[in-house]
Amino acid sequence: MSTPAALLEGAIGRVAAGAPSGDPAAVQAHIDALTKPPGSLGRLEELALQVGCVLGDPPPSLDRAVVFVFAADHGVVARGVSAYPAEVTAQMCANFSGGGAAINVLARACGTEVRVVDVGVAADVAGSEGIEHRKVRAGTEDLSAGPAMTAAEVMAALAVGVEVAASAEAWIVGVGEMGIGNTTAAAAVTACLTGAAVHEVVGRGTGIDDHGLARKRDVVKHAMARVVRRDDTRDDALQVLRQVGGLEIAAMAGAMIGTAARGALVLVDGFISSAAALAACRLCAALPAYLVASVASHRSTEPGHAAVLDALGLVPLLDLEMRLGEGTGCALAIPIVQACGALLAEMATFQSAGISGPDGNVPGGAP
Amino acid sequence: MSTPAALLEGAIGRVAAGAPSGDPAAVQAHIDALTKPPGSLGRLEELALQVGCVLGDPPPSLDRAVVFVFAADHGVVARGVSAYPAEVTAQMCANFSGGGAAINVLARACGTEVRVVDVGVAADVAGSEGIEHRKVRAGTEDLSAGPAMTAAEVMAALAVGVEVAASAEAWIVGVGEMGIGNTTAAAAVTACLTGAAVHEVVGRGTGIDDHGLARKRDVVKHAMARVVRRDDTRDDALQVLRQVGGLEIAAMAGAMIGTAARGALVLVDGFISSAAALAACRLCAALPAYLVASVASHRSTEPGHAAVLDALGLVPLLDLEMRLGEGTGCALAIPIVQACGALLAEMATFQSAGISGPDGNVPGGAP
Repeated sequence: MSTPAALLEGAIGRVAAGAPSGDPAAVQAHIDALTKPPGSLGRLEELALQVGCVLGDPPPSLDRAVVFVFAADHGVVARGVSAYPAEVTAQMCANFSGGGAAINVLARACGTEVRVVDVGVAADVAGSEGIEHRKVRAGTEDLSAGPAMTAAEVMAALAVGVEVAASAEAWIVGVGEMGIGNTTAAAAVTACLTGAAVHEVVGRGTGIDDHGLARKRDVVKHAMARVVRRDDTRDDALQVLRQVGGLEIAAMAGAMIGTAARGALVLVDGFISSAAALAACRLCAALPAYLVASVASHRSTEPGHAAVLDALGLVPLLDLEMRLGEGTGCALAIPIVQACGALLAEMATFQSAGISGPDGNVPGGAP
Repeated sequence: MSTPAALLEGAIGRVAAGAPSGDPAAVQAHIDALTKPPGSLGRLEELALQVGCVLGDPPPSLDRAVVFVFAADHGVVARGVSAYPAEVTAQMCANFSGGGAAINVLARACGTEVRVVDVGVAADVAGSEGIEHRKVRAGTEDLSAGPAMTAAEVMAALAVGVEVAASAEAWIVGVGEMGIGNTTAAAAVTACLTGAAVHEVVGRGTGIDDHGLARKRDVVKHAMARVVRRDDTRDDALQVLRQVGGLEIAAMAGAMIGTAARGALVLVDGFISSAAALAACRLCAALPAYLVASVASHRSTEPGHAAVLDALGLVPLLDLEMRLGEGTGCALAIPIVQACGALLAEMATFQSAGISGPDGNVPGGAP
């Protein structure tokens, strides 16, 4: 049986060694030959290029997609950083189990499977059917007072992500979360890994008032003071996750690496998911090619999201001012990714359809 | 048998008389009770409100959706306003028939039916299977030299749209087009109906060069000089469609009115479709409540699209820099609209799921 560290190292190694399935120049030439004016499908063409490069041109069937929801609690909620009480994390797990949460509804509407993984919920959610039980510990310590978890717990949570991702039977994998208090952890992770100022990354999350926002900024500022930046990006990321991260954030980072290790596309959800992606990229330098950003967050409520996306160099597919998390952005973005796969697999070329180009001649036709 | 004018008048009357299915305050209260922080689904919540008001709360099944593609030619293409020759309109009809065009592929990927209607293709496309033959005339006259069509032809094209929309068995109906040269007509319609300047509405369409752009601006400027603005908005819209419009633009306007007359939602596609929506709103003042804008166009290539959306007060769901038309934006937006219907029909409330609100109590639960 592999240790958590060996599982993670193995996955990182597979991402680094993984040859892309498609040749970028050949995929682009194919896209340019399709029956439409060059570039007229805009960002769909860029996404089709990424799909072709990662999954092959044509790609395999993209009909199946999975969204993971990693759930965990945060000791820092005791400091009044969230508008909702900590028990809502477990209550929402029951809601996921019953199929009534936003992610269940949106995933059904978009034809996507949802897998909920308890990686650190404070309460016992064993009674909620369909939840995968991979609890590393029952919530983190209060990150405002000391490290959120031990180095071994960070590694264990990363390994949970790698392992569950390895069992996903889909070429499109979304990574979302549920955890009351986790915008505080995500803000701290973002500030530590990007160098952004606290006010640039701390927002109102689920809707705290001005006093709560001030507390949240103080908490992040004090927590960050414990993090010592070093040169080794991998150790930096592990240290940041340990000091100011969350169990679900570490598991999400692991799931992204594990998905890329399978050669599949990773759909990043909102702010928390993006912070996890940033940590994952520091752990695994070859990861960015596999990432697709699903949604922009509402700017005034989660300013940190834009900072992470900038650091990742990602432009989200959708800007619907969502800030719920749960993988809801992934669910809505999945049909767009599937559509890009279909463009490569099914669309006619000017030559195959006998259609004239701008010069009035059919490409490859008789002169 | 009704005359075209009577068909249109009947549809406009049904839109004006049609009571909305849902009470806005009740639908909003339902959305606020769902298990998510208030407003956290962003624009999905606004769209769910519109879905609930137009289609009822809960709405009927939205599994079926239709995208219409109205095809027609434009005499003005002889003036060198398009990068592609006019015969491409008919060639693309064959491509639609074969299922290889972008709209076919994207609609299949998004689970949507496509109906292609020839309302004015210059060539005979009777050999293309699956095309609905409702040709009013074989392309318009050159709008730079005189009226694009007669008043009777405008009314006939509008009636084609009303009639085909009446036969759509879906609560979500997208309205797209195919017609080489139609960005010139759409730009002229937009400038006439909004008062925007020519340079604000004329873009490069499928990709004309600087000389072509200058010609296109000249053509639009001269065509607009024939349009005499009056006070009666309905006569204005009919006059503008006749002088500088297109057969597919008139048919699209009719299809939007006909869809609203059935009480269904109208998905507006790109620039041409939006110009048709603007004309339709001048003909039918009660139409705006039924309209959803699917996509923003690439700003530099179709500047007129933003001008029309402003005039309509619509903010598009997707900004993927697309400028293809064909209803491709509608196809991608349809899963989002379906998802909003599912939120109303399937999502749990805090009370039904027994989840604590910000005060720590379950709404409606024991004190």
